[in-house]
Amino acid sequence: MAGNIKFDCVDIGAGFWGKLQTRNKNVTIHSVYDRFCETGRVQAFAHTWKEGEPNRPHIFWDSDVAKWMESAAYILRKDPTVPKLEAQVEAIIDNIERNQDADGYFNSYFQVVEPEKRWQVRAWHELYCAGHLIEAAVAWHDTTGRDRFLRCMMKYADYIERVFVIDKSAAFTSPGHEEIELALVKLWCHTGEERYLKLAEFFLDQRGTTGVVLDDRGHAVSGTKNIQDHMPVREQTEAVGHSVRAMYLYSAMADVAGIRGDAVLRTACEKIWDSAVNRRMYITGGIGSTRVGEAFSLDYDLPNASAYAETCAAIALAFFATRMNELKPDGKYADVIERVLYNGFLSSTSLEGDSFFYENPLEIDLDRNRARDAVGDTGMRPITQRVRVFNCSCCPPNITRFVAELGDFLYTTDDTTVYVNQYTESTADFDGITIAQQTNYPHDGKITLKVTGMAGKTLAVRIPGWCGEYTCSHTGTLADGYLRIPGADEMTVTLELAMPVTLIESRPEVHENAGRVALTRGPLVYCLEGVDNGPHLRDLAVLPEGAAQMEYDAKIGAYIIEVPGCRRDPARFHKLYEPYSRARRQDVRLRFIPYYAFANRGESDMLVWVRTA
Amino acid sequence: MAGNIKFDCVDIGAGFWGKLQTRNKNVTIHSVYDRFCETGRVQAFAHTWKEGEPNRPHIFWDSDVAKWMESAAYILRKDPTVPKLEAQVEAIIDNIERNQDADGYFNSYFQVVEPEKRWQVRAWHELYCAGHLIEAAVAWHDTTGRDRFLRCMMKYADYIERVFVIDKSAAFTSPGHEEIELALVKLWCHTGEERYLKLAEFFLDQRGTTGVVLDDRGHAVSGTKNIQDHMPVREQTEAVGHSVRAMYLYSAMADVAGIRGDAVLRTACEKIWDSAVNRRMYITGGIGSTRVGEAFSLDYDLPNASAYAETCAAIALAFFATRMNELKPDGKYADVIERVLYNGFLSSTSLEGDSFFYENPLEIDLDRNRARDAVGDTGMRPITQRVRVFNCSCCPPNITRFVAELGDFLYTTDDTTVYVNQYTESTADFDGITIAQQTNYPHDGKITLKVTGMAGKTLAVRIPGWCGEYTCSHTGTLADGYLRIPGADEMTVTLELAMPVTLIESRPEVHENAGRVALTRGPLVYCLEGVDNGPHLRDLAVLPEGAAQMEYDAKIGAYIIEVPGCRRDPARFHKLYEPYSRARRQDVRLRFIPYYAFANRGESDMLVWVRTA
Repeated sequence: MAGNIKFDCVDIGAGFWGKLQTRNKNVTIHSVYDRFCETGRVQAFAHTWKEGEPNRPHIFWDSDVAKWMESAAYILRKDPTVPKLEAQVEAIIDNIERNQDADGYFNSYFQVVEPEKRWQVRAWHELYCAGHLIEAAVAWHDTTGRDRFLRCMMKYADYIERVFVIDKSAAFTSPGHEEIELALVKLWCHTGEERYLKLAEFFLDQRGTTGVVLDDRGHAVSGTKNIQDHMPVREQTEAVGHSVRAMYLYSAMADVAGIRGDAVLRTACEKIWDSAVNRRMYITGGIGSTRVGEAFSLDYDLPNASAYAETCAAIALAFFATRMNELKPDGKYADVIERVLYNGFLSSTSLEGDSFFYENPLEIDLDRNRARDAVGDTGMRPITQRVRVFNCSCCPPNITRFVAELGDFLYTTDDTTVYVNQYTESTADFDGITIAQQTNYPHDGKITLKVTGMAGKTLAVRIPGWCGEYTCSHTGTLADGYLRIPGADEMTVTLELAMPVTLIESRPEVHENAGRVALTRGPLVYCLEGVDNGPHLRDLAVLPEGAAQMEYDAKIGAYIIEVPGCRRDPARFHKLYEPYSRARRQDVRLRFIPYYAFANRGESDMLVWVRTA
Repeated sequence: MAGNIKFDCVDIGAGFWGKLQTRNKNVTIHSVYDRFCETGRVQAFAHTWKEGEPNRPHIFWDSDVAKWMESAAYILRKDPTVPKLEAQVEAIIDNIERNQDADGYFNSYFQVVEPEKRWQVRAWHELYCAGHLIEAAVAWHDTTGRDRFLRCMMKYADYIERVFVIDKSAAFTSPGHEEIELALVKLWCHTGEERYLKLAEFFLDQRGTTGVVLDDRGHAVSGTKNIQDHMPVREQTEAVGHSVRAMYLYSAMADVAGIRGDAVLRTACEKIWDSAVNRRMYITGGIGSTRVGEAFSLDYDLPNASAYAETCAAIALAFFATRMNELKPDGKYADVIERVLYNGFLSSTSLEGDSFFYENPLEIDLDRNRARDAVGDTGMRPITQRVRVFNCSCCPPNITRFVAELGDFLYTTDDTTVYVNQYTESTADFDGITIAQQTNYPHDGKITLKVTGMAGKTLAVRIPGWCGEYTCSHTGTLADGYLRIPGADEMTVTLELAMPVTLIESRPEVHENAGRVALTRGPLVYCLEGVDNGPHLRDLAVLPEGAAQMEYDAKIGAYIIEVPGCRRDPARFHKLYEPYSRARRQDVRLRFIPYYAFANRGESDMLVWVRTA
């Protein structure tokens, strides 16, 4: 089994990723903290809330703050000079230590608001919150070396084991919203305490074993696809249900498959992966196409305007992908991580770094939104502007931790090979090997790798799935998406990935995209915005053979692309319906910006899948 | 002011319309009656229902049965030999006479189920039911010469006048669902009793005068757009709200505008007409694009798969159009009636004539429906198969009466001119004039009119809006959609309307149809069905310059059209997203059937707006 190199060993430089991390530590992490203070999330840890006061705690607020704490830990690990974070985290830990029950239980909602409901309702996120607190505790210990938080959470994990495995005193046996499973694997990995791994396996094995169970009001509390509880995990073959829950579960399944060498579990993961990314994923890497249950739909059901494509789901897909890559390195996993990172994840955050999308649609049609509003039908209305905090604000602290740990995604190693998964200006130092990446990626495809300590090993550089042509200074063998080059004690590998503007089409099974293409360059998916291209974006058409012009935009931090196209001139129509005529077409220049940068200039129409002329 | 020639003066021959009328009197009228017996609607008129029994009466069942009675009257007027209808109607009239209150009130729901609620809730359709009963009574008197039913309904109308105008004892002053207004105009026209016209005007004038009024539960009971109550009718400029209610209201407005010479009301009607048909109507003549409130949406919001386009709304649009044509004859009105008749109305009924669509979508995508079902999102799911009866079964008896009175739509006259609005095999005899139409329309565009008694008058033959080229045996002047030919005592006019297969595009403002065309021939709109064309209809593309082949289909009763097209071959895709290539295209023949005939061969995908290659 291969292993990912942790970001501790990787320093991200001043390139595209470096700018993301700088924004994250300078702006986003603080903005999220301030919002969490304003909304009462941080204060909730004091357990002093009284009925009638504002900011009533919520069942999953602990998870929001925990992800923020984990983010702070990662940021401080790479840059201890970032102000305020350490004291802010420690103050929260003070509250956790002070308010944790003697038995180990900690939850700012249930201890304060509904203590009688502890472990009574599967859907109420207690184990989900516990999982995120455990991840945060491990991260904080790694960063500070101080084990106060970690000890609290080990005590909590011990208590969970007692409740669920030994006493079986909870009203349910398997978590609702998954997360605790992968957190317990992390806790095992960090502490070496086998019981935590077994507890993770217990939760995995419990899932999908009860059949459908209804509560007093006839609602299914077990056995549903939405929580991936419709069958035992080893029998599952498709990505189903709530997409974040799904990906957290699949991540833990991949973890255990690798740790235990469980071939059946691994096969399930592979089938699920295939389902998720080859039939149920947007070109942006977004998953979970329907807002009904925030869930996967059926194969090829990928509507654009109503695309849910939750930010957390994109992040979680990257978590699953990186674990799959550990099971068997293949460029297809890093391809998906790259697709997510530059598109459906990055779109979540404003260019300023302080506001967020929860959903990431692939089309905004303001006329249609107005029509829906006018008749009182807001069911399919996409969000058109980022906001600073949500009622359900799971995404912003997931964004901060994902950016802070981007270094995790660069390298994977096994006994013989170092896999270079992602390209960005950076240096790395691990296992006696150093790798310095010099590149302007993703703005151009030239990457220079200065490598030492690789004699006798293989350097496997990923040739992205989007790349049709490349040159490399070294001869190698291309297999499973990596060009495998014999290593040397000192070597400078120059890779040049051709990065033309490329139009992408979808399979015919994706009905929404028939007759339409997405413009891409390298890993970036582009979109049209109304602010650049006027009204009726769905009517614009790109000329497939037209020459593209590029222009670097410093604010967006990427190239803007113009291509020739056409549209129909509304002034040449006299009636609602007229005989078809090409004469109504007029030539236009279509101005594309990277998808990730949409909605940064006020409300505007937006479209990824554009007609071809 | 012009006047329409009633169907009493017109005999429909054996052509397209004749076949519709034959099916109507042989199959549909009986099928609707049987369903209305099975569901308790007919029995409800006996007023014997008791709490706990099945088939609890419903607040608008009287209107369903009344429309069926009106249909029976029209059918019997042209063919007294149709069996059973007369006795069936008389039996219902027996019940009405027996159960009408001494004060004149009649309602099979409120008298039996909730007598204390009489005239208490505006939204509960009492005046709507009364209006349909009045229309039926007028029709029955015209057909049979027996005035028993008419006297009952005059008594009811007198009582309504007392309640609403004199005593003002009802809890509301203006009807919820419109219908009574146009019915009272008919009753005035039939009886000469001015009070009925004034009562109609009273209801029109009350509408939109209260502002928003909320009930105890905070629901708006007055002042909403859904019942066109947002402003006084003379100030209204747009087709809004529940589309059937709207069209019944606008019909009465047009009636009164003509009768009173009310220029302000007429201008309102003209603006509303423009809004309805030039910005808010499907190519099929369907109106009311959203199921939320069964209503008009904003301009150009015409989604295809979720198109509501209620059958009753299409019929009601024809009612409005024919009244507008009386205000000032213009071919544009008959164009819309024709569009409705051959497409969005006719689609409502199965080829066998015994099952019905309430909604008439312009696209069915079974894959998408399955996906929505799988996640529990049925909000946008279109109906895919006709049914024999609905819980809200307003459409079937509206269909039977509309087909029975099709003769109403052929001719309009004023002092100088006879307007020939529609073409179908038929003879007519009115005002000393006879017109015999010989034609195979809509299968070809040749029409021979043998006319007598027109010396000194003008014969105005409509040149349909869809017609780009025509020839006529007589010289005339084309104005307002009619070719105006000097009349003679005997004349044979031969008109030949070129009827090529024509691709139609929508204005760019209709975002759903960008890059797509509808195939038409003459007045018929065509569609693709999956059963003929395989899966993924949205991916099929028509070659605009391709030659069409036609083949008459006796079961459908129209030509089927094949044109060359292309599709992308799913076997040439290896991934969900691939670089755009024309090489994946394969030539296919696209087989189009008339839209009206869709869904007659089991569940199938269906598409009106097809890509162009």
